[in-house]
Amino acid sequence: MERNLYDADHELYRESVREFLDREVAPFADQWDDDKWIDRSVFARAAKTGLYALQIPEQYGGSGESDYRYRMVVCEEIARINALSFGLTLSLQDDLVLHYLLDLTNDSQKQRWLPGFAAGEIIGALAMTEPGAGSDLRGIRTSATRDGDHWILNGQKTFISSGIMADVLVVAARTDPVGGSRGFSLFVVERDTPGFERGRKLDKIGLPAQDTAELFFADARVPASNLLGEEGRGLGYLMSHLPRERLGLSAKAIATTRAIFDLTVDYCKDRPMFGQRLVDFQTTRFELAELETEIDVAEAYVDRSVLAYNAGTLTAVDAAKGKWYISELQKRVIDRCLQLHGGYGYMREYAVGKAYIDTRIQTIYGGTTEVMKEIIGREIAREK
Amino acid sequence: MERNLYDADHELYRESVREFLDREVAPFADQWDDDKWIDRSVFARAAKTGLYALQIPEQYGGSGESDYRYRMVVCEEIARINALSFGLTLSLQDDLVLHYLLDLTNDSQKQRWLPGFAAGEIIGALAMTEPGAGSDLRGIRTSATRDGDHWILNGQKTFISSGIMADVLVVAARTDPVGGSRGFSLFVVERDTPGFERGRKLDKIGLPAQDTAELFFADARVPASNLLGEEGRGLGYLMSHLPRERLGLSAKAIATTRAIFDLTVDYCKDRPMFGQRLVDFQTTRFELAELETEIDVAEAYVDRSVLAYNAGTLTAVDAAKGKWYISELQKRVIDRCLQLHGGYGYMREYAVGKAYIDTRIQTIYGGTTEVMKEIIGREIAREK
Amino acid sequence: MERNLYDADHELYRESVREFLDREVAPFADQWDDDKWIDRSVFARAAKTGLYALQIPEQYGGSGESDYRYRMVVCEEIARINALSFGLTLSLQDDLVLHYLLDLTNDSQKQRWLPGFAAGEIIGALAMTEPGAGSDLRGIRTSATRDGDHWILNGQKTFISSGIMADVLVVAARTDPVGGSRGFSLFVVERDTPGFERGRKLDKIGLPAQDTAELFFADARVPASNLLGEEGRGLGYLMSHLPRERLGLSAKAIATTRAIFDLTVDYCKDRPMFGQRLVDFQTTRFELAELETEIDVAEAYVDRSVLAYNAGTLTAVDAAKGKWYISELQKRVIDRCLQLHGGYGYMREYAVGKAYIDTRIQTIYGGTTEVMKEIIGREIAREK
Amino acid sequence: MERNLYDADHELYRESVREFLDREVAPFADQWDDDKWIDRSVFARAAKTGLYALQIPEQYGGSGESDYRYRMVVCEEIARINALSFGLTLSLQDDLVLHYLLDLTNDSQKQRWLPGFAAGEIIGALAMTEPGAGSDLRGIRTSATRDGDHWILNGQKTFISSGIMADVLVVAARTDPVGGSRGFSLFVVERDTPGFERGRKLDKIGLPAQDTAELFFADARVPASNLLGEEGRGLGYLMSHLPRERLGLSAKAIATTRAIFDLTVDYCKDRPMFGQRLVDFQTTRFELAELETEIDVAEAYVDRSVLAYNAGTLTAVDAAKGKWYISELQKRVIDRCLQLHGGYGYMREYAVGKAYIDTRIQTIYGGTTEVMKEIIGREIAREK
Repeated sequence: MERNLYDADHELYRESVREFLDREVAPFADQWDDDKWIDRSVFARAAKTGLYALQIPEQYGGSGESDYRYRMVVCEEIARINALSFGLTLSLQDDLVLHYLLDLTNDSQKQRWLPGFAAGEIIGALAMTEPGAGSDLRGIRTSATRDGDHWILNGQKTFISSGIMADVLVVAARTDPVGGSRGFSLFVVERDTPGFERGRKLDKIGLPAQDTAELFFADARVPASNLLGEEGRGLGYLMSHLPRERLGLSAKAIATTRAIFDLTVDYCKDRPMFGQRLVDFQTTRFELAELETEIDVAEAYVDRSVLAYNAGTLTAVDAAKGKWYISELQKRVIDRCLQLHGGYGYMREYAVGKAYIDTRIQTIYGGTTEVMKEIIGREIAREK
Repeated sequence: MERNLYDADHELYRESVREFLDREVAPFADQWDDDKWIDRSVFARAAKTGLYALQIPEQYGGSGESDYRYRMVVCEEIARINALSFGLTLSLQDDLVLHYLLDLTNDSQKQRWLPGFAAGEIIGALAMTEPGAGSDLRGIRTSATRDGDHWILNGQKTFISSGIMADVLVVAARTDPVGGSRGFSLFVVERDTPGFERGRKLDKIGLPAQDTAELFFADARVPASNLLGEEGRGLGYLMSHLPRERLGLSAKAIATTRAIFDLTVDYCKDRPMFGQRLVDFQTTRFELAELETEIDVAEAYVDRSVLAYNAGTLTAVDAAKGKWYISELQKRVIDRCLQLHGGYGYMREYAVGKAYIDTRIQTIYGGTTEVMKEIIGREIAREK
Repeated sequence: MERNLYDADHELYRESVREFLDREVAPFADQWDDDKWIDRSVFARAAKTGLYALQIPEQYGGSGESDYRYRMVVCEEIARINALSFGLTLSLQDDLVLHYLLDLTNDSQKQRWLPGFAAGEIIGALAMTEPGAGSDLRGIRTSATRDGDHWILNGQKTFISSGIMADVLVVAARTDPVGGSRGFSLFVVERDTPGFERGRKLDKIGLPAQDTAELFFADARVPASNLLGEEGRGLGYLMSHLPRERLGLSAKAIATTRAIFDLTVDYCKDRPMFGQRLVDFQTTRFELAELETEIDVAEAYVDRSVLAYNAGTLTAVDAAKGKWYISELQKRVIDRCLQLHGGYGYMREYAVGKAYIDTRIQTIYGGTTEVMKEIIGREIAREK
Repeated sequence: MERNLYDADHELYRESVREFLDREVAPFADQWDDDKWIDRSVFARAAKTGLYALQIPEQYGGSGESDYRYRMVVCEEIARINALSFGLTLSLQDDLVLHYLLDLTNDSQKQRWLPGFAAGEIIGALAMTEPGAGSDLRGIRTSATRDGDHWILNGQKTFISSGIMADVLVVAARTDPVGGSRGFSLFVVERDTPGFERGRKLDKIGLPAQDTAELFFADARVPASNLLGEEGRGLGYLMSHLPRERLGLSAKAIATTRAIFDLTVDYCKDRPMFGQRLVDFQTTRFELAELETEIDVAEAYVDRSVLAYNAGTLTAVDAAKGKWYISELQKRVIDRCLQLHGGYGYMREYAVGKAYIDTRIQTIYGGTTEVMKEIIGREIAREK
């Protein structure tokens, strides 16, 4: 069934993305994994080529292009070269941080951060999660107290993607200790803010090149001009950015799933087994048939979501459905692809082995599968 | 996420379909189940209202409307009233038999059968399956031998839907005993053909009102003018009609699944349990969240298939993916919906109980899940 | 792996059970299904042969044999002939009702009911479930008020297995409206008790011969001498009988599962398909391998449970694990066995089709899968 | 339900094992993972304490104890401290290599290797798998040609556990190029054999401390006295050792599964979430209830297998059932345990994260799940 999502402009764009990745990313991805660090300079080159930050208005150095299909193309091409740590960092910029900087900033703030972001010189991060709070935003304890022209932040964050690398961090903090859901605000904390310390880089079982960190705020002094939007509306801002964040996770997930499946099909056609090819076994063919069907079915939902997002009609609940479903699919499919590889699948040099460990966080970050189901289930219980 | 499949014309059509079903079908469906027989006269009324046979050209009494979305509307509305035996009979006419009569007939044949079909006075059936052959078309043993102006048919068919009720039966027979895949032809066998006998109505565990039968041909004399298309091309004709047949099964499946899910949600909101409502339990909400997600995801694929069918691009393999996947989903979802009903779900008076037993054939007829996977798997093995 | 559960005595017993079933049950089971009623006289013959009620002490006409392995043999042999309605009725007597009559009765009560029970002349039922209460024992609203030498019962029960056929019914009623968990008592209500009416036989989707009924108590006068055990301890009595009830359901489930699997293996060895036997397909062999493994694994747990029950160490939680797990296994295995039968599986004349619809209640009655998980989960949360 | 497998002697033994592991293994396991190498000297201490090699006869320095329950105790205790690389190495000695050295050796060979093995000074490996052959023993291409007092080996092996560390390697080679299943023989290749080279240590996604290697034989000269058993019977010897090998994999799997589950239960009781504990959520309790049930059920099968092995009645097919089923269970349970840990589960410092990556090979090595199902399925197809 023809997929129909893209037109010629997207395919042209794909060519340039592919060319860039093959030259600037694919040859270095293993090294970055060994270094447990992505060479920062690649982001400037990526931004210049238009791999991300497209939606920044032209006046700030971007292209003003908000069609999500271009982002989808990037996801697919990064999946093809299995550079998941790099891909996650890009997703973090484009599907998460940038929208806070676009939607909630005043002109002066735009002027300060967007050009650097558009040039790939400013890397961003979003700092919500705290130890002991997890997905529970209302449990955030990091506090921000007004002190003249500054806010004084105290508290701790954890599991912050790009927490080490980031130059600007969007930080959620409690500005009103008794303020309930209206007691939170968002701040941009910049590198070298006094009182802001980064903890150790966390030792994950996968995604080695991608940095995940703890952050500490001990009387950190953030200028009042770094408040994002209005005081007290932080929770609402976080909520309103959920559809894009979740769509970003679904997009990455379906692209990775398809890419690993495709190379597994190739493997099954090449691999000799008991005097035949692996694909000559009926059980192999059934397995591949099941996986391809499941991927095709899920892709139809993602594509529908992409168009709905473009049209401004994708709800947080729709996006939650995609997030958990496609993430679980990714985990399931890649697990079965690894199994089809036999012992080779357990080797780090095979893409499927690397993808397997990189994938395991997918059903956890950005809201666990369980949190997504809770959100959807409450909506069902509330309807009518 | 807005579904976007339908426009105003379809919704207008839905009103008339719904009105008809509420008046002419819903009040009688239980009686038909008890009678193990659908009152024939309803088909004439259904045809007149435009519930089926829309795609027959106007000159033969139809509307010449081939947009599959109208068919989809009918599936959804029949699912809503849980009249699955009636729905299957209609699907058999519209998704299966009619297309043989439209695509393979000459003018004179069209004149003989289409007007009666358009008027709901001629009911059709397709007779392929034989005992011992199942999905294996090449294993068909029913033979047709030319004898002057007639073909003499000998053999036996089984599991023929509407086999008892049908006035015209499209029968696959071997016209060349050594002809391999070019040795089969299709014939229209009409009621009262000498030598054609119907066996007993098979005693199924579900779909009681819908008749399923064995057929016997003992020197049955079929006029030469009842040959469909060209001699020897029967297998090709069967193959070319698979996308529509399979799409029909997916359409019915997703509609039934959604309908039973919707009433289960209502049940969970009404049903008291340990001093709360069933839906107040977290595990219930998770279950409903999972099911709704799975249905939404699958629906995106069916909708994409409907549009591809309209555009003439739905392949037999695409349709096979939908057939097995949505059928298995239907089985799984309705099973879980029954479980949510507790003891009431096991009672025939509850829609979910009836749907449960009616559903079990869904992964078997029209090509089992296993046959679909074999077809898809071979295509994967062959590609490139 | 040798099973090791039985010794020679059990195998001898099996012979007599098998001989009885082949003569007295197998030839009539279909007729009973059509009649929606089991011929009562078979129970007297069954009791005489020792098919059930073995554990009644010899002085009351039984054998005083409490080894559960004899009961297991009966389950296996009934499963072999696929007489599930008969099997359920026997299970109801032996695993449920009888133990209330043995454990909670005084001498005079024993004298009144046990000899008839041992002779197969008294059929029992247990009446707990009420509309709107389900598994929630504390939600029971049927009330019993003392009136001189009688208790006056008012209320309604539903889903009562053998509710129509039963001569003595163990009924749970609230004897203290404010008494919390100490406010329930158990009564034996006998046939022809004034004010006790049986409602309609419920129309189930399966188990046709087995009767399930609603019961009504409108100022029903039950003699004070029919109180079982002590007033106010009803809930405790129900709790203490759960291990046996649940073990009975596991025993029936594993036996039925194994029996249907065995005949499916035979079917796969006989059934031709595309010029081979069904079992010659790799996917069929994998399916059978999975099912046999799952059955073997589960059987080890049931056998361990049987020995623990004999030793008096089977807890209600252990038995709950078996109940839900083996019941879900039964549902899953029989569903897949039906699928392996293709279209024939959907026919009532095939054992697997009949077993499929009879099986669906297994994860619901005697405590749904969800109730079992709740019980187990609470125990885990409580431990330590 | 009491488990009943062990008596007081086993529990006494458990104490000494636990004491040893807590002192000699637990404090060093992380270091070994970082080093990608287990300190060899621990094996001598382990052997001295009786952690393995118990079944070596006393005359060769062992205890002559063949009760598998002692081995099971070791599996459980190693699982408790999550030292899976160490555990695998021990399993390799006790469940795999040792039995070749015990069963197939003549007195002189026993004299040469068993005392060192019993002292933990000789580490063994089994070298069957070749690139391109996988589970297909008949596809082995490594050849051994007689040359006077030596055999000349040529060929390549891969995925050889402990291939780097091993002092003695049991190597399967083809001694008769046209000999079909009688053309294979087994040789002990010793460290420093001329022409025997070890390749690189393979870079796996898990089990870092455990070494897995490629081996190369280029005119490697093995003394004729190193032939194990009779020439040409190698395949039969491999077959006859399968029950023990597979039992060893099941034993390790169930022990690891239980250990990770237990610590996950503790985690769920401690972890705060939305103002409650994680275990206070109904969905968490259901999840734990399901997992505990599945583990208990599987454990009954393993325990039955252990006793059957002790009694000499465990067949290769019985053991294959356990191998695939418990391995898949381990994968499934540990995946769900990781999910319950949320983001912490993805961190290497949490036992569950480490266990997750170490576990993934479990359904592959020692015969993949698919190979096990093929073996079982063939047996089912052959029976009767």
